[in-house]
Amino acid sequence: MAATIRDNRIRGVLAPVLTPFDRDLLPDAKGFVAFSRVLLSLGIGLAPFGTTSEGNSLSVDERIMLLDALAAGGIDMSRVMPGTGTCAITETARLSAHATRLGCGGVLMLPPFYYKGVTDEGLFRAFSDVIQRVGDDALKIYLYHFPRQSQVPLSLPLIERLLKAYPGTVVGIKDSSGDFANMAAMRKAFPGFDVFTGSEAHLLKMMRMGGAGVISANANVNGAAMVELVKRWREPDAEGLQEALTAFRVATQDFPLIAALKALMARATGDQHWRITRPPLVDLTIEAEDAMVKKLERAGFPV
Amino acid sequence: MAATIRDNRIRGVLAPVLTPFDRDLLPDAKGFVAFSRVLLSLGIGLAPFGTTSEGNSLSVDERIMLLDALAAGGIDMSRVMPGTGTCAITETARLSAHATRLGCGGVLMLPPFYYKGVTDEGLFRAFSDVIQRVGDDALKIYLYHFPRQSQVPLSLPLIERLLKAYPGTVVGIKDSSGDFANMAAMRKAFPGFDVFTGSEAHLLKMMRMGGAGVISANANVNGAAMVELVKRWREPDAEGLQEALTAFRVATQDFPLIAALKALMARATGDQHWRITRPPLVDLTIEAEDAMVKKLERAGFPV
Repeated sequence: MAATIRDNRIRGVLAPVLTPFDRDLLPDAKGFVAFSRVLLSLGIGLAPFGTTSEGNSLSVDERIMLLDALAAGGIDMSRVMPGTGTCAITETARLSAHATRLGCGGVLMLPPFYYKGVTDEGLFRAFSDVIQRVGDDALKIYLYHFPRQSQVPLSLPLIERLLKAYPGTVVGIKDSSGDFANMAAMRKAFPGFDVFTGSEAHLLKMMRMGGAGVISANANVNGAAMVELVKRWREPDAEGLQEALTAFRVATQDFPLIAALKALMARATGDQHWRITRPPLVDLTIEAEDAMVKKLERAGFPV
Repeated sequence: MAATIRDNRIRGVLAPVLTPFDRDLLPDAKGFVAFSRVLLSLGIGLAPFGTTSEGNSLSVDERIMLLDALAAGGIDMSRVMPGTGTCAITETARLSAHATRLGCGGVLMLPPFYYKGVTDEGLFRAFSDVIQRVGDDALKIYLYHFPRQSQVPLSLPLIERLLKAYPGTVVGIKDSSGDFANMAAMRKAFPGFDVFTGSEAHLLKMMRMGGAGVISANANVNGAAMVELVKRWREPDAEGLQEALTAFRVATQDFPLIAALKALMARATGDQHWRITRPPLVDLTIEAEDAMVKKLERAGFPV
């Protein structure tokens, strides 16, 4: 099983769950829980409030409301790893504490990302402060390294220092840098540290290297194929499964990804609300959608 | 008078008020109100929760608590322009509505800044949504253009569209780009639009051009000199006043500015709590402080 649990940790395939909005741009909790259930039924773990989820476009109160809805909806919270990193340590702590109390398997934590060019010392203090403010041994932090988006990279010396100071609390990372050498360096330097790639184009290499899995935008619409590769990565057909994953990714990557995935959700479900993005993002134009659909069809993925 | 009000608008000199923290890194409301009172007594308006205020390092609840403390402390709220721009339109709306209800003279609004490379259409929708959610004719928005920090620039076509759609609500801008040509272009293109420079090095040029004034980090410690220039910009000694402002700025600009200003506050007041910054920022090292003090002294500013 992918996205299942060994030693109580989440591994395998996780989707940064797309957030459905209503016409007033408010999150649709019912649709969110329903979609989360579909993902879990496919063996896909839940990483709500990631970049693809428009997580930072949600207020902390909205994120807490959605987490509560998952718990109330009977979702197995041990398979949920919400994004909780904000610009303010007190807000990050509040959200992380709430997620931990609900039994979430972990939290995916961006560094504070308003100030650029900050020091490792400052970032260490930020993560330390959040950990102490949460004050719960059940807290499990997955660092979120996404330098292009956050503009605040997480260095190997910083991670090493965090692992020494907070073993059992800082347990892994999602590396969305696209730099496979960085993921390999972390695997080598930090035994037992769970490295997730942010791109399924690296999934087979990650599995062969003992990586924890993948947390990728496309898992929202193509996650079952990723789960298949996580199950079969030792099999002779693994290369072919990887090629198909990469082909799908290549077919969508030239479009604004979040709007593109929401358009695909609208087409798959018939529910046009899925097209709604929260500003500053905008929905996909008809022209872009047509171009993407053609590209996907040419790549062997009729939609 | 600087920072006073003509046609009900804030003009002159505003300080992005430094936020005092206690040893638990929580904002010290009492110290914040006391310092705000000192600034006002010097003719300096208040722009709390700016970049220099570590505003985005505060939760929305903390910002609301501090605004309430100002109002409860009898501060003239018409001279307060708090930073309210967050990554989430619902949070920005909540904070802006609260500030407006308290009678704030305006709000200084960053665009949502997590996503980079967003479109003008997306930014227009974000500001529109906030304005509609606040739903209060008393709302006055000053756009906050700080491309180096936010990584989300505000283009002239976007500003033009906002001014057409929301006249009387979108009333000005703080331009922290350092690009004087951009400030001049806005003055020329948008009559009646209040342009504040983010750097006192441009203050005299701004006054001569009909600009609204300055909102600068250094106004926390050198604001009285800026007020003097705003009063006397037509006088023969204005160039000399400008040179002194620029010399002060040059003497501090090579140091991490927020920590540097807090060190100066600690020296001026004797209250060492002023040195505390919230992570990811760190306090100034003793070596850096010594170097800055020497530089200021050489420039004619004994501290």
